[in-house]
Amino acid sequence: MGKLENFQTLIEQKLEGFCRKNGDERILQPVNYILQLGGKRVRPLLTLLATDAFTDELEPAVYPAIALEIFHNFTLMHDDIMDNAPIRRGKPTVHERWNRDVAILSGDAMLIQAYQLIIKTRSECLPSVMQTFNTTALEVCQGQQLDMDFQERTDVTADEYIEMIRLKTSVLLGGAMKIGAIIGGATEEDQKHLYDFAIALGLSFQLWDDYLDTYGDGLKTGKQVGGDILANKKTLLSIKALEHASEEERNLIIGVVSNLSNDEKIARVKDVYAKYRAAEFIKTTAGAYHQTALEKLNALSIEEHKKEGILQLVDKLKERTH
Amino acid sequence: MGKLENFQTLIEQKLEGFCRKNGDERILQPVNYILQLGGKRVRPLLTLLATDAFTDELEPAVYPAIALEIFHNFTLMHDDIMDNAPIRRGKPTVHERWNRDVAILSGDAMLIQAYQLIIKTRSECLPSVMQTFNTTALEVCQGQQLDMDFQERTDVTADEYIEMIRLKTSVLLGGAMKIGAIIGGATEEDQKHLYDFAIALGLSFQLWDDYLDTYGDGLKTGKQVGGDILANKKTLLSIKALEHASEEERNLIIGVVSNLSNDEKIARVKDVYAKYRAAEFIKTTAGAYHQTALEKLNALSIEEHKKEGILQLVDKLKERTH
Repeated sequence: MGKLENFQTLIEQKLEGFCRKNGDERILQPVNYILQLGGKRVRPLLTLLATDAFTDELEPAVYPAIALEIFHNFTLMHDDIMDNAPIRRGKPTVHERWNRDVAILSGDAMLIQAYQLIIKTRSECLPSVMQTFNTTALEVCQGQQLDMDFQERTDVTADEYIEMIRLKTSVLLGGAMKIGAIIGGATEEDQKHLYDFAIALGLSFQLWDDYLDTYGDGLKTGKQVGGDILANKKTLLSIKALEHASEEERNLIIGVVSNLSNDEKIARVKDVYAKYRAAEFIKTTAGAYHQTALEKLNALSIEEHKKEGILQLVDKLKERTH
Repeated sequence: MGKLENFQTLIEQKLEGFCRKNGDERILQPVNYILQLGGKRVRPLLTLLATDAFTDELEPAVYPAIALEIFHNFTLMHDDIMDNAPIRRGKPTVHERWNRDVAILSGDAMLIQAYQLIIKTRSECLPSVMQTFNTTALEVCQGQQLDMDFQERTDVTADEYIEMIRLKTSVLLGGAMKIGAIIGGATEEDQKHLYDFAIALGLSFQLWDDYLDTYGDGLKTGKQVGGDILANKKTLLSIKALEHASEEERNLIIGVVSNLSNDEKIARVKDVYAKYRAAEFIKTTAGAYHQTALEKLNALSIEEHKKEGILQLVDKLKERTH
């Protein structure tokens, strides 16, 4: 069994132990529920891989790693309320299964529980770990705020969109790796390289996700192709097209035209995307971030074989989306 | 100017500085708004008084003290959503002034900001401070959960009710004092005495509040006398009366009878309270907790004059309610 699988097993075990300890206390039932919906556990994996790159002593990183998964799921629980999302990983969301108040309050408890776990590390790294976690957590909230703000705007620029996904999704990957690096005893320079690596990787994968939603193989991605187009969702594709679109094309993209079948709408929006080379733009941008990520990994002061686990994870994530 | 006034001024200054630093960032506007609604700042006062009882070096307690006020206001922001409360301190609540999603997200940001401040203390007390804060914060959420659960029940016992208010309101007072004591370098025994003092004090004041809602002088308390009765609210008064009530009396108290004027309803419920000596019960219980609080203060290993600030605060809080 490879390193990645070992870490994955360790994370699942610790999450199970965490849920067992929560028992069936009312306020923690939704916490256990959302955690047991599964997921790839990318964030705790990144923490463990970062620690592992600098030391063999993994133990002090295990609970902070779990804390990052708990935090991530806390954001999902509250975002689902704000997005009125009925389904998460094929199951009812917490506010659907219980109600809005339960989702608010159990989410709050979950955030506090993340803090209970993040402090379970070596006391000499505690100030630095806490500071990184706090900054990251606040930025994730700012990202969600921007995402909501953007839904009411049609003039969002590509730079603004990238800043939003950086905050909403990438900084947590960056924070996860930086915390792992701190606990592993990395220099500040290496901490920053890993942080920047994860930011660039996160951006590249998010952009690829957006690309594949329109141009991917539905069987591989497990999503309805064209879902973003039908939902009039802001992505780098639509933003790029809107930059140049005529009024008619604009109305089509933002969803003012409503007398089209789903297939027709997807086809016509894709025509506009093609006209303004939106697919090329998103692919080039994603590719550039991917390149940056690899450069940051290269800049690390550690031996090549220490990076293997990280590269394995990158490949595994690629498989899913490429 | 007395010690208490000095601390109060210091707290207001630091809160102003905090809000200034938040600036007009969108997600933090509601944070500044709720903090600027005012309040007695009891929790940070308790922290500073506790530190002051053990050391002259107050500085390391200042930001943790502010953290407790931020946390308290975070709970108000989220509780107001759950309670559908339109007004807080005479102004629209955050979810009314903005909307539900803003109140959820800015509340989350506020909780994270509390953590940003709680860690600004001596690093050697950080693990203990964090642990106390986490435990307390989670208990406050559990208290809110119980409060919501109890609203759907008519068989809540006096013990259950007291456990609910202990969690919902008292543990944060206890946590505030314990954190102050830890930072002040108190022994674990003294930390516990101050914690127990604040718990007992909190229970006693909460019960007095409940008593005065029905039996107080509206001009002094600033509340509508009988408000709890009209809202069919669970308090130790109604719980005690329900223990012995006939079916007719029961229906009156829980609000099944609806053809009464406000004055009639208040008068008739008060008759039932009198019949079962509910007022005496709540007064005796509150008095016993007040007595316990003073005993805990007495048990502290410090000189009498070190307790003066704390006793001043107790008197000041009494003025408001007695």
